[in-house]
Amino acid sequence: MNEHVLLLDAETKAAEQPQDHRDELRLWLRLLTCTTLIEGGVRKRLRERFDVTLPRFDLMAQLDKSPDGLTLSELSRRMMVSNGNLTALVERLVASCHLDRRTAENDRRAQVISLTNLGRAEFRAMAAEHEMWIAEMLGDLSRSEVTELLRLLAKAKASARQAVQGERP
Amino acid sequence: MNEHVLLLDAETKAAEQPQDHRDELRLWLRLLTCTTLIEGGVRKRLRERFDVTLPRFDLMAQLDKSPDGLTLSELSRRMMVSNGNLTALVERLVASCHLDRRTAENDRRAQVISLTNLGRAEFRAMAAEHEMWIAEMLGDLSRSEVTELLRLLAKAKASARQAVQGERP
Repeated sequence: MNEHVLLLDAETKAAEQPQDHRDELRLWLRLLTCTTLIEGGVRKRLRERFDVTLPRFDLMAQLDKSPDGLTLSELSRRMMVSNGNLTALVERLVASCHLDRRTAENDRRAQVISLTNLGRAEFRAMAAEHEMWIAEMLGDLSRSEVTELLRLLAKAKASARQAVQGERP
Repeated sequence: MNEHVLLLDAETKAAEQPQDHRDELRLWLRLLTCTTLIEGGVRKRLRERFDVTLPRFDLMAQLDKSPDGLTLSELSRRMMVSNGNLTALVERLVASCHLDRRTAENDRRAQVISLTNLGRAEFRAMAAEHEMWIAEMLGDLSRSEVTELLRLLAKAKASARQAVQGERP
């Protein structure tokens, strides 16, 4: 990649659209700050209250939504976690009787992971508290502000999805 | 931690506040999805367009905002990256002449990291494109929707900050 071309390129574009997109950039940074703050709070409380990591909570949440279980590759896709880390996490939770692992009916090479009764009960106890933490963290927003944010973020999500997934590499 | 106490606890609380906080939970999940989508798009474009990782971009962004440079521990705090990963990244960018490293004037044991002219020029070229990517990703929002989102997210941020940082462990 030629640096001079890049620099020229960016300068030209910046000159064409001076100061134009500052608000969108501020919006993105604010989104990121909100997410980082709340995620940090959830991570801390999961650790202090249940001695559980966020990836473990997320894994159990995915499985709670899928009573028939998921294969490792389905889980990996939904969680955006590397396969290596996921495998180690699953191993630990099978050993502690929170997860069940069986061979897939339609594919002998694939294994299906699901929550055990113990795993489900533990997850739901954590999820109930988690819901209250989130409500507390967003507690200064009125009902109508929550509704308005839901609507605007749905639009932002559709816009970003279109731009990111619609593009050709 | 006693599981039965936890389960009882969560059930009691759920009974007290039935279905009360579903919208806040949906809002949090939507925030997380938006952030993950945009961050994934930025990560992909940085790699394809500049062969640069997101942590490297973030590191250079922090230094661009601090012309006098930052110590490793200041950088680490601002980036929420582990010190080990950060040190390796800094080493590589010093070797490639993008960063400068000198001993702090007021503390002989601390080192101050700053962008070189090359590093700054490269970062600004990337930042100009980055700003356009974000504008494109959020392009379906009108000017007034962007303004409204900025306002509501500022409120969400203050609320979350208060809940997360104001709490006692």
